[in-house]
This record gives sequence, structure tokens and C-alpha cells, in this order.
Amino acid sequence: MLATLSTDTKNRALHAAADALLRRADAILAANEKDLQTARAAGTAEAMLDRLALNKQRIDGIASGLRQVAGLPDPIGEVLRGRTLPNGLQLRQQRVPLGVVGIVYEGRPNVTVDAFGLTYKSGNAVLLRGSSSAAHSNAELVATLRESLTVAGLDPDAVQLLPSADRASVTHLIQARGLVDVVIPRGGAGLINAVVRDATVPTIETGVGNCHVYVHASADLDMAEKILLNAKTRRPSVCNAAESLLIDAAIADTALPRLRKALQDAGVTLHENPTEDELRAEFLSLDIAVAVVDGLDAAIEHINTYGSGHTEAIVTTDLAAAQRFTERVDAAAVMVNASTAFTDGEQFGFGAEIGISTQKLHARGPMGLPELTSTKWIVWGDGHTRPA
Amino acid sequence: MLATLSTDTKNRALHAAADALLRRADAILAANEKDLQTARAAGTAEAMLDRLALNKQRIDGIASGLRQVAGLPDPIGEVLRGRTLPNGLQLRQQRVPLGVVGIVYEGRPNVTVDAFGLTYKSGNAVLLRGSSSAAHSNAELVATLRESLTVAGLDPDAVQLLPSADRASVTHLIQARGLVDVVIPRGGAGLINAVVRDATVPTIETGVGNCHVYVHASADLDMAEKILLNAKTRRPSVCNAAESLLIDAAIADTALPRLRKALQDAGVTLHENPTEDELRAEFLSLDIAVAVVDGLDAAIEHINTYGSGHTEAIVTTDLAAAQRFTERVDAAAVMVNASTAFTDGEQFGFGAEIGISTQKLHARGPMGLPELTSTKWIVWGDGHTRPA
Repeated sequence: MLATLSTDTKNRALHAAADALLRRADAILAANEKDLQTARAAGTAEAMLDRLALNKQRIDGIASGLRQVAGLPDPIGEVLRGRTLPNGLQLRQQRVPLGVVGIVYEGRPNVTVDAFGLTYKSGNAVLLRGSSSAAHSNAELVATLRESLTVAGLDPDAVQLLPSADRASVTHLIQARGLVDVVIPRGGAGLINAVVRDATVPTIETGVGNCHVYVHASADLDMAEKILLNAKTRRPSVCNAAESLLIDAAIADTALPRLRKALQDAGVTLHENPTEDELRAEFLSLDIAVAVVDGLDAAIEHINTYGSGHTEAIVTTDLAAAQRFTERVDAAAVMVNASTAFTDGEQFGFGAEIGISTQKLHARGPMGLPELTSTKWIVWGDGHTRPA
Repeated sequence: MLATLSTDTKNRALHAAADALLRRADAILAANEKDLQTARAAGTAEAMLDRLALNKQRIDGIASGLRQVAGLPDPIGEVLRGRTLPNGLQLRQQRVPLGVVGIVYEGRPNVTVDAFGLTYKSGNAVLLRGSSSAAHSNAELVATLRESLTVAGLDPDAVQLLPSADRASVTHLIQARGLVDVVIPRGGAGLINAVVRDATVPTIETGVGNCHVYVHASADLDMAEKILLNAKTRRPSVCNAAESLLIDAAIADTALPRLRKALQDAGVTLHENPTEDELRAEFLSLDIAVAVVDGLDAAIEHINTYGSGHTEAIVTTDLAAAQRFTERVDAAAVMVNASTAFTDGEQFGFGAEIGISTQKLHARGPMGLPELTSTKWIVWGDGHTRPA
């Protein structure tokens, strides 16, 4: 029973899976080449091809990821709270697996293995529904993982790949209430919204990031420029990249020309009279919406109106402004004088993440192993009955 | 802003609301009398009338409940995790309110005030959708609460009553995605299933309890009888009451006649050749389904098949059996040699509860104040940018 496997057994399985991936690298690369050929023939853009492509080095990285998860603390069995009640009942709240986790995702085949590693370590079975563009790669990867479990004497059904050719398989997955405990969509806003809208299984919304950098009237403009450029240009395609710049009206005369030039020099297109759509956009490109706001509270209101609840940053030297911003901005992560790029499981010290939750229930922000668990109350008595 | 009110301010508001309820007791009782008259005229059963009825003593109890919540620790602002990262970033994960909580519930008017107390203390606004049978009582209670907030200089919109005459108000509430953060249904299985099925807002399933008492082959039968009678007959109408008795085949010859007689003497009807429906039933009455199971693993499988994930109990003297049962039974609470009746927020030492979650996401088991919160990561830097 997966939920009750010892930590040692799970870690051994993860190392065995990593070994198997390296051993079968040629077969995996051959399968990946089939997907790449199909994608090239269909005229897929270069950036998408790069997401899809595997090579020896990437397979090494994927295998290392499994070993890294093996090295993380096992969340299962952790006692979160516990006490002996006045009547002598011994009460403890312990972490247990969620059960069956569904993952719906797009092109990157590494997600297939990463998701297996995190769900297996946390005692969960995983149902994977990847993109049809990566069908051959995913099939070979999952076959490798399953075989390594079988060889280790473990149940291979801990990881299962759903048919990606069949569009209905997503619907079946997200509506399998009572069979699937949670579905986590990983990908663009379209995928995530479709899953969340149609699911009857509980979902965890991940990833959509319309992150703002707000330059407060008191900001050090050198710092503001450095943080803004890092947040916007470090990796424009990731969810923690900045998509909107808010400049305080009190300093707009000096700050705006300077930051405009810095952004333009870095190849960023500024949308200075943004439409509503641009204010809500997750560009995932070298574009940024720019708005001048009338002070701190206007910035907070703007962010709470247009933000996606991912990561919001203020640049300021004013302590009261920083405190008010962190208290009142409603987001998974709020940064003071730091780049939005830090919202990340590895950066936060989790070792690995399954995604970044932008919802408030169950998990918020980077999701590591503990976020893939539930809890159970275990109560030991000695014939205890409750008085009327 | 409700989310940022100090603990002192919230506690003062709760005491003021308690005072107001006592001061306006006559008006509340008059409104309640109107609901009772309508219910009597409609031939409502006595048990339902009792749930609906208020009197001075019950109003005292409701007001005391608010004062008790004022005395509980404020979960908001609690730091759950925190560290300084190697790069000097100061990271902390802090409890914040969920935002707007919807409660859909049935006849009992005390839920109106209890739900306000717990949501207000945890910094949440609450949208209440009670039963039309309690419309006058709820209107008077909510008017009292809102007036007490206004008098205290606080925003009365922290508590709002939705029209119960309008059936569509439930649909609007449970589909107000983006406006309402979570909906908690409180009531019978029909209400809960309807809310969970039709909601697009995240929900927390509460309360349905098909709880089992499993009498293991090694059980002390005196203890088994005592626990079984307490679990079944203490308060048959509550969700933690036992609805099913499982007897190990190895001791059925002696245990079954004895336990049958004890139950019958206590006025319980045994369903000894239970149908599938009876095995799944939450009777909420002096009825119990009885099944003989072929050992520990058969008991666990039976429970995981037919149980509702609420509370499951084993009576045993065998340590290994107890350990295996607690590990493998999939429920919010698992009891060893204790009555199922202990699954309760007050019994667990939470002070008060908003319900008992039978789902795995976000909260499982009795839900106190911390379960009405989310978290936010707050990160303080000094111009930190992330390397490529």
C-alpha cells in the first residue's frame, strides 16, 4: 500500500527510477525525436520545440531531480499537533497522503518525471495527463518509471499516463469525484481556467502570474531599476516575472523617464496607456504594462483589482509603507525590496515544487511535499466514552 | 479593513455583539415566535421545532459562545514558517484571513451567530444563507449583530444575510467565483451534496458521518459494549454518532448476541442483513447496520468502501491491530478504544468549531479558527535580485 510505504522504500524507488531513466536514455531520446519530428512538421515555434526537446544532459537533470526528492524529508507521518486531553485521550494530528493526484500539463516532458517524484515521495498515486505533442516521450518515460517500480517489487500503478490523444480523458480525470482527490493543472492561463471551471474534483490553481513592481515615492531609484529589470527580463516566460509596473505619481516625473529608458534598453516594450486587458495580461514576453498611481493605497487597490494573486513587490525606503503594503496586498507572496523572481520552491528552500498555488485554500505559493498531503486525527483511548 | 483589525478590536466587537443579543432578546424571541408559528402551522415535526426554537437560556448560550470565541487565540498574523535564506532574504509565512466565507445551513438559528463569531475572529466577512424556516429569527439576529458593529464604529458588512425566500441566492453564492473564497455547507447529506455538486467556488464538505465501531477479535467485550452504546445512543442525531457495527467473525458467536441485546435494551433497531443502502446510511436515529467481517483487513476494507471519512473506531487489545487500523483507515479521525463521539472541536480543545470537514483538502476533521485562514509569504530584501 503506497500510503504506508516506509521512507526508505520510497527513497530506494526514486533512486531506482533515476537509474532506469539513465539506462533507458537512448529509448527515451528516440521517442522524444518522434515527437520533435511531428512538431517540426506541424511548423511548431522554436520556443515550443525547445520545451519539448530532451537530450542526455536534460535526462541527467531529470534523474538528478528524483535523487534530490529522495533526499528531502518525508512529510508523511509528521505530527503537526498533539496533546493529551484532560480525560486522558491521546490526540495527534498526523500528515497522510492526499491519495490520488491528477496532473494536467502541457509540452514539457520533464513534468512527467518531476510530478512522479514529488507525488511518490508524499505517498500519493499520480494520474498524468500530458500534451499529445509529447505523447511518445511521456509514454516512454512512464513505461520506464513503471518498470523500475515493478523490478523493485513495488506497485507500478502508482504512476499512470492517461491517453493524450483522447480529449475526453481530461474531462474524465477532473470529474472523477471520489476517485481522484485533487487535480493540479500546470500550464498557461487557458489550460488552468478550463480545468478549474469544469472540474468537480477539488483543484489547486497554479501559476498564472500578473506580478506588479510598485515603485513607491520614497524608493531608491537605483534599487528600483535593478529589481524591475530582474523581475521583467530574467526569464520573461515564467509565472513570477513582472508584467506590470506601477509608479507613484509623486515621483513619476523623474522615475518614469529613467525606468522607461532602462526597460527599453533591455528590449522591453512598454504599454504606457494600458487597456483593461493589458492591465490584466500575463504577457510572458518582453512586454510590460505601466501605470502611474496616486500613492500607496491606490497602488494596493490597483494590485488587488488587476493582480492574479501570485507575487507583488514594493520598492520603498519607508517602513510604514512597506508594512502597509505587505498587510493589505492580497497575494501568495509579497516582496519588499526584492525581485518577484524569488517566488519559487527551490529559492524558498523547499528543494522542489509541484507548482505555485495562487488560490487561498489548502496551499498558497510554492507547493513542496507538505502541500501534497492531508492530515488525519489519531486518538488513543482506554475505553473512553463521552458524557451526555 | 476587516482583515487588518487588531485582535483587541475584534474581541471588543464580539463582546459588544454578545451584549446586544442579550439586550435585544425580546425582539429576537418575538421574531423566533413568528418562525415557530409558521412551522407549527405547516405541521413541522417536534424535533425540527426544537432545533428552530430559541428561549432566554439559548440566547444566553449563544452570547456566551461569542465571548468564548473572543477568548480564543487570534490565528491571524501567526507565523507558521520562517527563515533567512542564504542570500539574506527574510522569509516568513503568515496566517491571513480567507476573505469572504459563505455558509449555507439549515434550521438552527444559533448557527447564524456562531458562524459570525468564528469568521469575524478570523478576519473574514461572512455571507449567511440560512433556511427560510428561520427567516425572521435570522433577520433579527443579523440586524442585531450589524447594529452592534455599527455602534462600535466597525463595518457592519462583515456579516450579511442572503434572502432565504429566494432559492437562487444559494446558486449565486456558490457560483460567485472570485468574490467568495470558500463556501461551507452545514446540514444534512442532501444539502451538502447539492452545494458541493453545483459550486464553482471552493467548498469544504462537512459533517456527513457514517461512522463505524469495529469490534476486533481481541476486544474486551465490556469495553466494546460501553463504547458502542455511547457512540450509538448518546446523541443519535449528530454526525459523530455510530451508524454501523462491524464484528469480527472470530468472536461473532459470543459478541453478536451480547451486543445485540445491549443495543436492543437501549432501544436501538439492528439492521443485521444490511442492504448496500443501509451500509452507506447515515441514520441519525436509533438504528444501526451490523455486519460480520472476516478479520482486521476485511474491516478496514469495509470501512474504506462504505464509510464517509468522518470517524472510525476499533475496539481491541492487540497493539499491532490498532496500529494497522489507524494507518490504513482513511478518515478524518480514527479512534482506538474510544467512542466516535469525541470527534468535536470543543472535545479536541479548539474552543469552538465551524463544522467537521470530511474532505482531504485544506482542513480535515473539526474546523476551528486556524482552518478559517489562508497564508501569505512575506519576503523582506534589500535590493535582492535573482541570478539568471
